Amino acid sequence: RNGGPEFRSSDGFFTFQPRGRIMLDFSSTHGSSYDERNISGTAARNLRLGADGDIGKLGYKIDVDFADNLTSVKDAWLSYSTRPFGLPITYYVGNKLKDRSIEGSGTMSRQPFMERNAVANVGAGVNGYYGLGGYVKAYGSNWHVGASITGDDIDNTGDNSDSLMYAIRATYNPIKGRQGFIHLGSWYYYEKLGKDITSINNVPRIGQNFNDNLRISSSSIADPTRDEAYGYELGGVFRNFWGFGEWTRRRIDSSSVDVVDRHASSVSAGWLITGEKPGFSSRSGVWGTTKVLSPVTSGGWGAWELAMRFDRYDFRDAPNGGTGSSNTIGLNWYLNDWSRVMLDYVDWNTNNRVGSYKGPDDGDSVGLRMQISF
Amino acid sequence: RNGGPEFRSSDGFFTFQPRGRIMLDFSSTHGSSYDERNISGTAARNLRLGADGDIGKLGYKIDVDFADNLTSVKDAWLSYSTRPFGLPITYYVGNKLKDRSIEGSGTMSRQPFMERNAVANVGAGVNGYYGLGGYVKAYGSNWHVGASITGDDIDNTGDNSDSLMYAIRATYNPIKGRQGFIHLGSWYYYEKLGKDITSINNVPRIGQNFNDNLRISSSSIADPTRDEAYGYELGGVFRNFWGFGEWTRRRIDSSSVDVVDRHASSVSAGWLITGEKPGFSSRSGVWGTTKVLSPVTSGGWGAWELAMRFDRYDFRDAPNGGTGSSNTIGLNWYLNDWSRVMLDYVDWNTNNRVGSYKGPDDGDSVGLRMQISF
Amino acid sequence: RNGGPEFRSSDGFFTFQPRGRIMLDFSSTHGSSYDERNISGTAARNLRLGADGDIGKLGYKIDVDFADNLTSVKDAWLSYSTRPFGLPITYYVGNKLKDRSIEGSGTMSRQPFMERNAVANVGAGVNGYYGLGGYVKAYGSNWHVGASITGDDIDNTGDNSDSLMYAIRATYNPIKGRQGFIHLGSWYYYEKLGKDITSINNVPRIGQNFNDNLRISSSSIADPTRDEAYGYELGGVFRNFWGFGEWTRRRIDSSSVDVVDRHASSVSAGWLITGEKPGFSSRSGVWGTTKVLSPVTSGGWGAWELAMRFDRYDFRDAPNGGTGSSNTIGLNWYLNDWSRVMLDYVDWNTNNRVGSYKGPDDGDSVGLRMQISF
Repeated sequence: RNGGPEFRSSDGFFTFQPRGRIMLDFSSTHGSSYDERNISGTAARNLRLGADGDIGKLGYKIDVDFADNLTSVKDAWLSYSTRPFGLPITYYVGNKLKDRSIEGSGTMSRQPFMERNAVANVGAGVNGYYGLGGYVKAYGSNWHVGASITGDDIDNTGDNSDSLMYAIRATYNPIKGRQGFIHLGSWYYYEKLGKDITSINNVPRIGQNFNDNLRISSSSIADPTRDEAYGYELGGVFRNFWGFGEWTRRRIDSSSVDVVDRHASSVSAGWLITGEKPGFSSRSGVWGTTKVLSPVTSGGWGAWELAMRFDRYDFRDAPNGGTGSSNTIGLNWYLNDWSRVMLDYVDWNTNNRVGSYKGPDDGDSVGLRMQISF
Repeated sequence: RNGGPEFRSSDGFFTFQPRGRIMLDFSSTHGSSYDERNISGTAARNLRLGADGDIGKLGYKIDVDFADNLTSVKDAWLSYSTRPFGLPITYYVGNKLKDRSIEGSGTMSRQPFMERNAVANVGAGVNGYYGLGGYVKAYGSNWHVGASITGDDIDNTGDNSDSLMYAIRATYNPIKGRQGFIHLGSWYYYEKLGKDITSINNVPRIGQNFNDNLRISSSSIADPTRDEAYGYELGGVFRNFWGFGEWTRRRIDSSSVDVVDRHASSVSAGWLITGEKPGFSSRSGVWGTTKVLSPVTSGGWGAWELAMRFDRYDFRDAPNGGTGSSNTIGLNWYLNDWSRVMLDYVDWNTNNRVGSYKGPDDGDSVGLRMQISF
Repeated sequence: RNGGPEFRSSDGFFTFQPRGRIMLDFSSTHGSSYDERNISGTAARNLRLGADGDIGKLGYKIDVDFADNLTSVKDAWLSYSTRPFGLPITYYVGNKLKDRSIEGSGTMSRQPFMERNAVANVGAGVNGYYGLGGYVKAYGSNWHVGASITGDDIDNTGDNSDSLMYAIRATYNPIKGRQGFIHLGSWYYYEKLGKDITSINNVPRIGQNFNDNLRISSSSIADPTRDEAYGYELGGVFRNFWGFGEWTRRRIDSSSVDVVDRHASSVSAGWLITGEKPGFSSRSGVWGTTKVLSPVTSGGWGAWELAMRFDRYDFRDAPNGGTGSSNTIGLNWYLNDWSRVMLDYVDWNTNNRVGSYKGPDDGDSVGLRMQISF
């Protein structure tokens, strides 16, 4: 399906495509007033094995991550596609990325920066990016709607009822032509919290993923009764240029702390220097494969991309909530459709009011990633 | 081998068949007098990746489960098949399901209900369904014998000698014809306990697997010196109908609590409404693939099966041992040879004398499973 | 590549070879004056799933171990091969075995004994056999050099800078002909320790891997400031005979305990009774596949090998450091290029000055392994 090896039963009815992903990072941070933040090292960001395929009209996918020597099931679903009234609809049951924001909805392995943006991070619910439940996606010629009802994480214990998340996202292309398209999107979720959720916290990393000490902090919100968030997306692609902006507000009701809001925004833009079309899929509103015109592995130069991103985090409405921002310059070298090298320079600042790294602090983090994904 | 994708070296000598399994459950319990038992949620029951194949006359299989984000090795064995005096014998070394009771001996993914029956659960030894050791299976035209000597679980620490289980099971078909067969079976194991086994407990779930609070409880048996169990199996298949009954007694000797017996029985019957032959293998005495006459994925209706089961648990001989029963109605929709949807309605009651849920209690659990297995 | 199943995209550009490994052990120890050392049991030594392949000139490999129901990433790398001035050079990024000693540099699945020798064990650094970083290997007609700079283990937390290891190894064949070759080798590493390394210990098992109680012990070395080791290798292959000797010294500087040295030596020799060429690769200086002349799976006898090894451990320079030795006789039966049965008899003695098993002690351990690896 994606050009990698695919195998079929003798009658072609049963297909099986092995999936693999290796993402290897080097990360180094400098300039913080805290020594513990100025650290360097290597890490495996993703190490995955899995498979997908079809049995007739049924689809399946299973994908497991082993980075950090921990097992973490990512995709694990069954799907069924149909076309009532000529409208393509796919139903999914299982564990999947929820349709929520541009970068929360899609695989990190195709996105233009090493880490997802502030909106994807801050707008995530208690149960994170993935959820076990039912999903539906419907597609028109210039729009798509994705909705889901999902329970707890795949590793939840069975001594309490699950939290339930109701999520929906719609994207629309008011202009869509040969040269590019305009992307508009919006999403919302409401999370009915299980009894076992007695507090909520979310302290996203702001440099590379390697650095555990570099986060926007906040006190945890006790006794949450309701969790909801929404967001807006605006952007587009023109020839070999692209630009996107996203904004989110997450609102947590608490019986003891009152309502707490968290905001984040992300604006990014990029240029495929070597002339490739940006990999953004207008159909689903997520980043897909950048098709390389002249792959290194066939004697060419590969694709080169220059990109910038501005992320803003604002937790000030929360008890002791901090603020922060990061400005990222990224240089991506796509060797072929499955491999790339990424260099991200992140100029960040944090102003935390709680935790080990209080007060204004700033510095920069440099990250290098080697990646293969199929 | 099972109709899925299989790959061969150029000389056909080395085969490799990828294996995958996805089982996704929704479960909901109602009617208990304990709120903590009336819970609902989603869970991944099995998520597996693996492979099997042959290198000439040698066979191999490796199958690892990742549900709940935990790694659990299931099948991991090498085999060698031979035919002395025309009698097919297969030897195995490694980790495998022990030949013990109808449902304990075979894969859950082919059995007619979402969970194994009371006999498989109550009759299990300290080291559970799987064991690392040596196995042999011999087959006649209307009988089979399976025996094994196995040590500790695959994740046992090496600071003590293993417990050793000696297990044997035999099945026999006094009648076997075109229309069906009669199945008789019996099994026994004796477990020589290692020094690290200082107490034994076994508190099986009685509703769906999701619900951790819904169990038959018992105090643990301290200072066990010997563990053994035996069971009987009776049943048969006639055209598109099937019925089976099983009974077990497990006996644990203890130097401090005296001998303790545990009993369980299970009776079940089913009807393949759409005319398929039940998937029960007369050869090995376990459930195998239900071959679907008109698969959904080829435009048909799939196979539909209606089944019932009555399970009885009796731990009263144990200190503070409880009793319980569950009556299950199951509706199975086999989309094709690798996929099915299961709906199980379980009407249960427990009478525990120890733990958080003491005294008579009853209710019902509804489970829905989507499954693909190849 | 190794004769197992390999799959290609339709244009042959993208290859994928599934990898699997099953190693099943039985181990039994007798003769120790400590009962806790005289234990027996089964264990899975390695259970792996993975894949390797190429995308044009890029190579990749991912290999994950699941033995003991723990997830442990082994190989996870990307590679690029080039040939400047006719000299083959391969660059690797990721997690890999460091080039360090004969048996530390190569896969256990191809080595002639069930466990790696004393030199591989004692000469290992804080971060063990594997490291996440960059590697380069260059090959001449009768030499090879391997060098690496690697950070922490793959499961290291990101709250501190990584330790860094700089490692190099060179091998040389002064004589290399049709009948055999002489192997000379030497290696060195220097490890710049991270702040999170507050003490070092290394208490290698001396019998089979199963027995956790059978180790050479030593007090841990507090406040290490520097870690380095070097070693020498000498050996060769003549027709169907082989022999190798290795020696290592590891030196740990400590700000509180002063410098501590640890020594180990290993001498081994073997005879392929059935006439096969020993699998040792003169090119890389590691053990590779023993090509079986008459495989069992094709009706032959397989390859039979008799081997001996003498290992010496000397930790006496460390606070309370012990000594020990093990003499091993091994009989290997290679059924074909991917399968073998190993019988190892180890006559060991330990003289520990700390821990639960102090004073002179000796005994013997017998191990049996069934293995398939592709």
